[in-house]
Amino acid sequence: MTSLAQCQALDQQDPLRGLRDLFDLPPGVIYLDGNSLGVMPKATPARVADCVTREWGTDLIQSWNKAGWFNRPQSVGDKIARLIGASAGQVVATDSTSINLFKVLSAALNIAAEDAPRRKRIVSERSNFPTDLYIAEALCKERGFELVLVEPEEIAASLTADVALLMLTHVNYRTGAMHDMAAVTAAAHAEGILTVWDLAHSAGAVPVDLTAAKADFAVGCGYKYLNGGPGAPAFVWVNPMHTDRFWQPLAGWWGHATPFAFTPDYQPAAGITRYMCGTQPMISLTALDCGLDATLAAEPLGGMAALRAKSLALTDLFIQLVEDRCAGHGLGLATPSAHGQRGSQVCLTREYGPHTPPLRGSLPPEGAATALGRPGGGDSGAYAIVQALIARGVVGDFRAGDGQRHKDILRFGFTPLYIGFEDVWSAVEHLRQVLETNEWQRPEFNQKHAVT
Amino acid sequence: MTSLAQCQALDQQDPLRGLRDLFDLPPGVIYLDGNSLGVMPKATPARVADCVTREWGTDLIQSWNKAGWFNRPQSVGDKIARLIGASAGQVVATDSTSINLFKVLSAALNIAAEDAPRRKRIVSERSNFPTDLYIAEALCKERGFELVLVEPEEIAASLTADVALLMLTHVNYRTGAMHDMAAVTAAAHAEGILTVWDLAHSAGAVPVDLTAAKADFAVGCGYKYLNGGPGAPAFVWVNPMHTDRFWQPLAGWWGHATPFAFTPDYQPAAGITRYMCGTQPMISLTALDCGLDATLAAEPLGGMAALRAKSLALTDLFIQLVEDRCAGHGLGLATPSAHGQRGSQVCLTREYGPHTPPLRGSLPPEGAATALGRPGGGDSGAYAIVQALIARGVVGDFRAGDGQRHKDILRFGFTPLYIGFEDVWSAVEHLRQVLETNEWQRPEFNQKHAVT
Repeated sequence: MTSLAQCQALDQQDPLRGLRDLFDLPPGVIYLDGNSLGVMPKATPARVADCVTREWGTDLIQSWNKAGWFNRPQSVGDKIARLIGASAGQVVATDSTSINLFKVLSAALNIAAEDAPRRKRIVSERSNFPTDLYIAEALCKERGFELVLVEPEEIAASLTADVALLMLTHVNYRTGAMHDMAAVTAAAHAEGILTVWDLAHSAGAVPVDLTAAKADFAVGCGYKYLNGGPGAPAFVWVNPMHTDRFWQPLAGWWGHATPFAFTPDYQPAAGITRYMCGTQPMISLTALDCGLDATLAAEPLGGMAALRAKSLALTDLFIQLVEDRCAGHGLGLATPSAHGQRGSQVCLTREYGPHTPPLRGSLPPEGAATALGRPGGGDSGAYAIVQALIARGVVGDFRAGDGQRHKDILRFGFTPLYIGFEDVWSAVEHLRQVLETNEWQRPEFNQKHAVT
Repeated sequence: MTSLAQCQALDQQDPLRGLRDLFDLPPGVIYLDGNSLGVMPKATPARVADCVTREWGTDLIQSWNKAGWFNRPQSVGDKIARLIGASAGQVVATDSTSINLFKVLSAALNIAAEDAPRRKRIVSERSNFPTDLYIAEALCKERGFELVLVEPEEIAASLTADVALLMLTHVNYRTGAMHDMAAVTAAAHAEGILTVWDLAHSAGAVPVDLTAAKADFAVGCGYKYLNGGPGAPAFVWVNPMHTDRFWQPLAGWWGHATPFAFTPDYQPAAGITRYMCGTQPMISLTALDCGLDATLAAEPLGGMAALRAKSLALTDLFIQLVEDRCAGHGLGLATPSAHGQRGSQVCLTREYGPHTPPLRGSLPPEGAATALGRPGGGDSGAYAIVQALIARGVVGDFRAGDGQRHKDILRFGFTPLYIGFEDVWSAVEHLRQVLETNEWQRPEFNQKHAVT
């Protein structure tokens, strides 16, 4: 059984330890929700203030040229490219993940319509992040396609001759399960199917090599592992073999070949710039630029490979400590234990009933907590446990199950840039105490408010 | 001829004079480009810093509830509503103007397809802001509609039985010409045509009453007269009679009825919230909130009506002083002199040739400046004059003509919140000196760089 002292020793030996100093972690908080909203880098307030007071306040419209506002979506995109196996000039930071997904799906369907007009399906996972499904559903309706949702184990069999696109999120938001991007892409391509990857829980969290995987399209999020701030602009990448074949219907002036010619006809810019639409929120984009600088500070220390090694060590330790120290409380593991199938988060299930094998130990007595009327799937207690942990400063989040295949989940993200091994030990110790003392059964932890 | 002393007296008598103190105007600058990028309110840096360091840095994901991030698009939208004749709950601040236009055009075409399936045209102005035309063009291609572009004087005759939508920008970006929204909307409705209004150069600049005009859809910009900062989120309004009839294809989770139920099927939220798509850039949205507070500070002083009265006095004065003091230099007036047809900007034309009647006085000798090789339409000198003014601290902008109908333009925006009458006098005095000394002919003012 790993001890606190051993965890502290792991921190001492961690070559990435110093990166934590780049972030402003609130005192008394163990923040295991970087997969939802990354922590603020220390450099961000001054850089944002400079954007506001100097670039905007003093220089005003001159900053479009002088401060590089025009090219900031591209310059920020170039930094993202280094984290996802893309080249400079292939990525723009712009709009939201949902909107970027609409753009790439539109273009991908255009390509499919030209190359394989009889393919009329988009395949995705039923447990994909819902906004991805909503966007695909709406576009399918527009274009006369069908959205087919399958379980992860059904993907291979679903890649049939009537499928145009496979749209997947690389690391699942609920479970932390990760696809083998290269293998899945190769399997899709073998059947003549294009791939669209959502990197929301991958970029900055796990190594991604879009070029080596020969992926077709990708989008991702700026405010999770890239630490770009709340609602930071998202990003979009398109394989250069596809970029100039079509454009996308969000054909705004920032994607025009010559936006300041103000011509009435749309002429798409060459390359990824045609995936731009309107003017971008420069202050938020500047904060994203800072977040990327903090992530890229790992490059001299081994970059994403080193971050990945530490992430796996952190999540391995968390799983092991939960098994060792929290047995007998009905917790299960939703995240795959195989390294190749795990992102940078660990999701624990919790239920009363015969359906979940506990990690180890026995289930609590059936119905023990049903009187509390907990939200989100009835009586698993997962919501209340998360609330009790947050009250102790251990910030994870809760995701409700569907009462059938998907169980209630306690979700913990481990951002190796700023989370250490002692943090993991302390988080599990708090979890153990919350469970053993039945602290989570307190009424205040069972009051539902808007879920984050 | 109005004197400097008279202008100073007008400032003394101006009941809105104190509002200027809410803005951080760079010293030595007369900023006549608020129609491109509004000035920073003094309150913004601290409010943005609070969003960054407290809401994000300290409170992290709690701020979705605690700081009201979830509802900020709606709460900011409610402030915008007060400026455009809409009710609380009818506007959201989100995404870019281009993207919002795509949303409302999509929904409007759905309504048209159901109510009047034989109407297959969208009418707009050829001189509409190009991004509006690009978005409409792309959507027409998707939906099998035709985009018909006409000159302003042809609009009335173009409202025929095959037209589904009339899409106009209320105040033209090039000329400052303003449509009579109520009259044009009534004319369109009389022919069974829906109206979509772009308020980019109207919101915060001129009184707008969408409700009274019975408009159908509107979008607008946050970074011009609303002073929301570079690339601030835009806004969207839909007439309540249409809101719940359809949704729009950018059907992301923020427009879902229950986003945190994470259901795989899209169920649009009731009301304007269904015009949301993905997570919004909170830092930029916070700056927009500040910009609106500065605009709404005029409410106790008479609000938009008082701002409009001052705006007209400023633009009247500018036109009169240019006529009085800059005669004989080939300047013309592109902006209508009738108050009811004028926005909050004045655009001057400049050309050598027989096509432009000068305001007064004679044209300079033909070809006098052709040797300089000026950009943007050859030899009007407009670009160089704007550059020379900027070098003197008088910030306007240049918009190139098309060599035919549209002449090169010197564009000056007058934001009554922070521009005074002495500013107008000084701007014209600088313009006079630039013209009379031929300062604009200096080579450094004729070097083209990226245009803003």
